[in-house]
Amino acid sequence: MTQRQTGRRVGRPRAAGASPTGASSTEDVLRAAAELFTSQGFSATSTRAVAERAGLRQASLYHLFANKDAILARLLEGTVGPSLAVAERLERHPALAPVRLWALCRTDVELLCSHPHNVGALYLSPEVSRDRFGGFHTRRDALRDHYARLVARAAPESVGSSLPDLVFGLVESVILRRGGAPALDGATAGTEVADGALRLLGTPESALAEIRAEGLELYRATRA
Amino acid sequence: MTQRQTGRRVGRPRAAGASPTGASSTEDVLRAAAELFTSQGFSATSTRAVAERAGLRQASLYHLFANKDAILARLLEGTVGPSLAVAERLERHPALAPVRLWALCRTDVELLCSHPHNVGALYLSPEVSRDRFGGFHTRRDALRDHYARLVARAAPESVGSSLPDLVFGLVESVILRRGGAPALDGATAGTEVADGALRLLGTPESALAEIRAEGLELYRATRA
Repeated sequence: MTQRQTGRRVGRPRAAGASPTGASSTEDVLRAAAELFTSQGFSATSTRAVAERAGLRQASLYHLFANKDAILARLLEGTVGPSLAVAERLERHPALAPVRLWALCRTDVELLCSHPHNVGALYLSPEVSRDRFGGFHTRRDALRDHYARLVARAAPESVGSSLPDLVFGLVESVILRRGGAPALDGATAGTEVADGALRLLGTPESALAEIRAEGLELYRATRA
Repeated sequence: MTQRQTGRRVGRPRAAGASPTGASSTEDVLRAAAELFTSQGFSATSTRAVAERAGLRQASLYHLFANKDAILARLLEGTVGPSLAVAERLERHPALAPVRLWALCRTDVELLCSHPHNVGALYLSPEVSRDRFGGFHTRRDALRDHYARLVARAAPESVGSSLPDLVFGLVESVILRRGGAPALDGATAGTEVADGALRLLGTPESALAEIRAEGLELYRATRA
């Protein structure tokens, strides 16, 4: 999570000396914004408040991000981009489709749980409309399409059904679970959801242990 | 959905004559608030705007609801109350646990899809904290507990696992799906999710058709 959000380092001076976290200014802004957007709401948060929480002057913030929408866009991208990159790697991988699906679920759930603040909760904010955040929606749709292709390969008889939506819904439901349990462990939840996705496809228990073992190996190989 | 939100009829005069929908003032307020809260956000919506959209004077609105929180509380209650009532009926019903679980999922998904606006999206609003909306959270927890008890009865080997959370997450994931597909059909989605919940429990396909048939009958008998 930290790595994927590291932006260019910018030499502008800070309002309050060194970074509060020792991270780059970009990371500090994203961290502060995630905290404030999820705890107070996007509309109710000013860029001034974000800059203050990040220990930066407002002018420095505007040097990093054009406006508040740009900060939110980057945060939203951070909830799909890394999973999408893994999905693209998995697309070309020779492993069986159920194994690849398992690995993608595991990766995606862990990502959604990895942010200290539940950024996915912002998906449902009225502000995150297709008009204003089209790039995010396009990327999330692309990720859903990867799930759909893997589900179609793993369960060809399901083509045309809404099974991909159920699987994608089960993955994203960790966002709703985190609402009530902020400390949800991503590795545990990821394995549970990945197993659950295979069960949704009607995978018999007798086949699941082997898929899980291979999926875990593939997850480790592709997340790097 | 409409019936459960019908409140007492109040004789205060309207700002603009008859109800825009022919419904009671309370229903008009709830309908207007649901539309504005989900499209503009709770914080960004004033009670004045809600009253205007409902065709009422602001004073009349305050005669029906003490404040904006009270409107949201009623809307949130409408997303769990009817399912909780069905869950309580199912608790005392002699049908097998998998059949009761199927019926509860079907009922709950249909309820979450029934509101013309995706009120469940407000679950993740920062404003809907436990402090301010404790009543809602308590009721949602009670509903989750009903799921947990049915899951434990249907799959005793799962006790202590997070299987109830997965099932509850799959049900509530229709909130996330509705974000991208506002016209999601509740009956179809309800059947898909209920089948999915049973598959999450490891129910073999050979047993599912019968559970579904009985579950559908039970759903019809208990929703009234």
